[in-house]
Formats: sequence, C-alpha cells, structure tokens
Amino acid sequence: MKKNIITISRQFGSGGRTVGHLVAEKLGIPFYDKELVEHVALESGFAPKFVEEHGEHAPGKTLLAYAFAPQGVPGVMNGLSTADFLWNIQCSAILQLAEKGPCVIVGRNADYILKDRDDVFHAYIHADMEFRADRIVRLYGESEKSPEARLQEKDKRRKLNYQHYTGRTWGAAENYDICLNTAAIGVEEAADIIVSIVKEMK
Amino acid sequence: MKKNIITISRQFGSGGRTVGHLVAEKLGIPFYDKELVEHVALESGFAPKFVEEHGEHAPGKTLLAYAFAPQGVPGVMNGLSTADFLWNIQCSAILQLAEKGPCVIVGRNADYILKDRDDVFHAYIHADMEFRADRIVRLYGESEKSPEARLQEKDKRRKLNYQHYTGRTWGAAENYDICLNTAAIGVEEAADIIVSIVKEMK
Repeated sequence: MKKNIITISRQFGSGGRTVGHLVAEKLGIPFYDKELVEHVALESGFAPKFVEEHGEHAPGKTLLAYAFAPQGVPGVMNGLSTADFLWNIQCSAILQLAEKGPCVIVGRNADYILKDRDDVFHAYIHADMEFRADRIVRLYGESEKSPEARLQEKDKRRKLNYQHYTGRTWGAAENYDICLNTAAIGVEEAADIIVSIVKEMK
Repeated sequence: MKKNIITISRQFGSGGRTVGHLVAEKLGIPFYDKELVEHVALESGFAPKFVEEHGEHAPGKTLLAYAFAPQGVPGVMNGLSTADFLWNIQCSAILQLAEKGPCVIVGRNADYILKDRDDVFHAYIHADMEFRADRIVRLYGESEKSPEARLQEKDKRRKLNYQHYTGRTWGAAENYDICLNTAAIGVEEAADIIVSIVKEMK
C-alpha cells in the first residue's frame, strides 16, 4: 500500500522535527508543524503561542479549573474545556490536511488521529537523555532548569496528553510502523531510512 | 560506533525470527536462537524442550511453588527457583556468546542482558494481530485455540517474563535502536533495513 502521508511523533530533543523536515524535503511534499499550529490558531481564534504550548500538553490546572464550568465562562468553548476544544480543532485540522494530499505531520498526536487511514506511515523518533540534553542546550540555549529537568517535564506532559486523548501508551512500538533511536542511528540517517521505506512501498 | 552484535526481540508471529536469520545470513555471522537454547540446556542439564518453553515465560505456578523451598528440593537449584536459575544461566550464556564475536541473538531478553555493551544494535519486530494470526496458522498449523487466543497468551507471558526479569516495559520503543512493523514493511524488507543500518555504522 502506497503511503502518502507520514506522521512523525517524537520525544522532545530527539531531532524528530528535523527528521520530519528532511523527509518532507526529500519527498517534495508539504511539512506541517508550526504551520499546522498557525492553521489551528486561525480556526480557533487562539493565539499561535497558546496553541503551541497547550496542543501537546496534558490539561493543566488552569484549564481543568474550567472543565466543568458552564458555557460562557472564560476557558469554556461550546461546553467543552479549553483543552478539549483545542483537541477537537486539532483533530479536524489534521483530518483536513490529510485530505488535501501527501504531507508530513509532526506531533499533535497525528498518529492516533490518522490511525484509520491506510495510506499513512507512522514513525516515532526517540533518543536517550544524554543525546537530547546535549541537543536542547545547543539548539535552545541554557535555562534556569537543568536540561534533564526540562526533558523530564516535557516527556511527562506529552505522555499524559497522549494517554488522555488517545487511551494509548506514549512510546509503545506497536503504535508505529517504525521507531528510530537518533542517538544510535543519527538524525539525517533516520530521515533517509524513512524516505527509502516510503519510496519502496507500492 | 560499529555494531557487531544484533539482538532481535519480537512479538510471537511477527516474523522476527526470520528477520534475525536473514540478517545473520546477509552479514555472514552466527545466528543464535534454538542453538542458544541448546547451549543453555547443555550448561544447565535441563532438557532443551524445557528451556525453550520456560526461557521467555513468566514464572508459572509449578515453578513458583518451589521458589522459597530449601535447597535440595526438586525445582530449586543453588537456592534459586527453577525459573531464576534458568534466567541466570541464560544471562551467562548470552554474555559468553557476545564475547565470542559478532552474532545475531533472537529473543531471550538479550536486549536487556547486553544493554551495557556499546557494540550491540537492538531491534524489536512487531505486527498487528491480523498479520500474526494469519502467519502462525500458515507456519504452525491450526490448533484447538483460535490463533488470536494463542497470540494473546504468548504476548502476555513474554510481557510478564520481560517485566519480571528486566524491570522494563515490553515493547517500549526506548529499549531499542529500531522497531519495525513487519505487517506494514515486510519481513525481508525489515531484515534489509537492519543490515543496511548496521553496515553503515562505523
């Protein structure tokens, strides 16, 4: 079965976004990450920064505080909590993007949202703590928190968000067609492997 | 880092054993599966059939019954339960095989046992229930139990054994350098991907 769409789920700092970008470039198809976020933001009226921050995070305290509040209260859209409203808009944006044609979608639980389409190839990119800590310091600079603490917090939030909205376990191999450890294999090499598999699929 | 040893962990029926065999053949290095079992059996004095059946299964009732029995009681070796004794012997056999030189080792929790060696590449092979059910009926024939029930039982036992002896989660992508879904990618193609990655690693 030919795979027209590629979803890339990734551990923070593993280079998954770069893998996705390279795959899209090599296949000559659109790449959705920040672009998707902007699209979602336009649809929902949220600020892009807000969507980016909450789109893959477990519902936080601020959002949960409104979860059972009546319609019309700030943070509650159409009777849904802000987080659930955002989830619904992201789902519909991703389903629409997939309908538009071949593309690479990074993050945003797209693996789960597109699980019923036969033409989607699902990849998960991960790496050990040392590789990721080194990478985020180089890419995003130093911070008050140690890089390990930043990674642990991001990992925890992605895991909770994924479990909450999909009912599946974050990082379980069975959710994906391929999982690659960029610390062992390399970021560019991971992209080449995905491209070569997808190209050979009929 | 050059990878001389390849461990292949696999879901029952996914074609992981065949992947391992093809990888060993293509790289021209020894392949250990039943051969490893026989080696372990010779070391321990257990019958090969017994080692094969219990080597990847959670300690069953029969074995647990002896777990706290005093030395000398049947089923208790050197003060260990039969299952723990078998685990120790498997560990030492796998460590010895790795010392001997390049090879492919299928199953037997070798990914965990060799996790501290830098020259080992860890692969996990999986597939969905439909692919595996079809495959085990073709390979091992019909049985009184449905193929799905056989798979569920095998999955459960491997998962419990892995968790019991390694403390890790069976099928978690982070335990491996690559995870491949043979239902999407193909068995021969999975072997080719592993061979090509390992050959390119310096």
